[in-house]
Amino acid sequence: AVSIEEPIEIWVTVPSDDGSHQEISLSISMRTPGDDKALVVGFLFSEGIINNIDDVKKITYFGPVTEPYSIQNQINVKLKSGDSINDRDFQRHFYSNSSCGVCGKASIQALEMQHNPQLTKNGFSISKEKLCTLPILLRKAQLEFEQTGGLHGIALIDGAGSILVIKEDVGRHNAMDKLLGELLISEVHKSAENMVLVSGRTSFELVQKALMADIPFIASIGAPSSAAIDLAKEYNMTLVGFLNQSSYNIYNGSHRIT
Amino acid sequence: AVSIEEPIEIWVTVPSDDGSHQEISLSISMRTPGDDKALVVGFLFSEGIINNIDDVKKITYFGPVTEPYSIQNQINVKLKSGDSINDRDFQRHFYSNSSCGVCGKASIQALEMQHNPQLTKNGFSISKEKLCTLPILLRKAQLEFEQTGGLHGIALIDGAGSILVIKEDVGRHNAMDKLLGELLISEVHKSAENMVLVSGRTSFELVQKALMADIPFIASIGAPSSAAIDLAKEYNMTLVGFLNQSSYNIYNGSHRIT
Repeated sequence: AVSIEEPIEIWVTVPSDDGSHQEISLSISMRTPGDDKALVVGFLFSEGIINNIDDVKKITYFGPVTEPYSIQNQINVKLKSGDSINDRDFQRHFYSNSSCGVCGKASIQALEMQHNPQLTKNGFSISKEKLCTLPILLRKAQLEFEQTGGLHGIALIDGAGSILVIKEDVGRHNAMDKLLGELLISEVHKSAENMVLVSGRTSFELVQKALMADIPFIASIGAPSSAAIDLAKEYNMTLVGFLNQSSYNIYNGSHRIT
Repeated sequence: AVSIEEPIEIWVTVPSDDGSHQEISLSISMRTPGDDKALVVGFLFSEGIINNIDDVKKITYFGPVTEPYSIQNQINVKLKSGDSINDRDFQRHFYSNSSCGVCGKASIQALEMQHNPQLTKNGFSISKEKLCTLPILLRKAQLEFEQTGGLHGIALIDGAGSILVIKEDVGRHNAMDKLLGELLISEVHKSAENMVLVSGRTSFELVQKALMADIPFIASIGAPSSAAIDLAKEYNMTLVGFLNQSSYNIYNGSHRIT
């Protein structure tokens, strides 16, 4: 049994005031098929192209059905308005807007200038006992991983230590996008009142996406990077690494662990 | 101890026939600092922008020294000629050149059309006993991983089971680029006569990079994806996954294991 890795091409259709519209190819990347609508919604959200699901008019597959999996790998997101994107060029400029040039600090500053993310003040917390039960829960919930060993998993978890949503993908950034997309589409769970658990390591990009989604707490089975820690500190997020049944490291925000 | 993740911006300077030159920002991504020249050479090579180290005239850092690591994160590669890139637009088109649209098969076909990679006919092989010793060798060689747990490692290994080169990075594609860059710069080891071992999972992109470098054998501690397997089959590369002390899976090319 092998995890599927296939390309996906994401297009957006952007309406103009004069009734015309523009079609733009945003990205091509490799992903695990099966949850593409959540993936593209989460991707557009974490890139700052949509603010919520109301900005999306319609999502449709197009292009040929490809073999051997009988799936379409091109998807178009029709936006309701072009307001959020008319003045941006669909390029990421996270790194180049600072007096220090290209550095981790500049990456954080650029994020601040572009999106000005702020965590909602909230009372989310979890006990250390519950926290240590999460790795086994995650493993049990990663059904496909059990079969293939090839997928990253990211779960949304509440303060009682229950898994609310779990997403998997060959790429961990995709798994996070799928999770964020699901939260926007279903509108069931409030991200500010929950945490995420990452099966692997925590990078700058994962913390950035959690921050964009107002998730105050990110834990991982593996290690965080320096840039992940710096970003968590800047925004007072809780960052935990090397989580296992008996111990963990707290890199920031211990007040959310009781 | 934490693995450093900092942005790097790669520029190329491309000369024109009339004596002028063009400066192009190729990419910004996150990487672990410390081996940047190998990283950029490997990146340019696996993107098909250079064919060997002779295409590079000079590599220089520029931009401010950033804190807290006192490093520069911008690097310029001056090319000797613009021949290889004047007629390309520095975008990747791996996925969109086929009648089947966007799919794994198209990705393989596009690679074929762009670069027409061919493995050198060679007699590389390794015994199954030696193969099973490699995971422990890799772990011992990953000095920084022992400290931080945060780095992917990729090693070049000869048919006798010795590690020739090892590279580490927070991103596995970066670790592979560093390895390929080192091979080009040092010109000591012939890639066609050796194999690579990956500490994590094997994606399409890793197999593609190994193929571009004429490396006939790729093994990993983790799982390969469907697209990685398809690409290895297409080019008769050996692909091994779930390698440990007592067993492994062969996905293609068992003739290189004795």
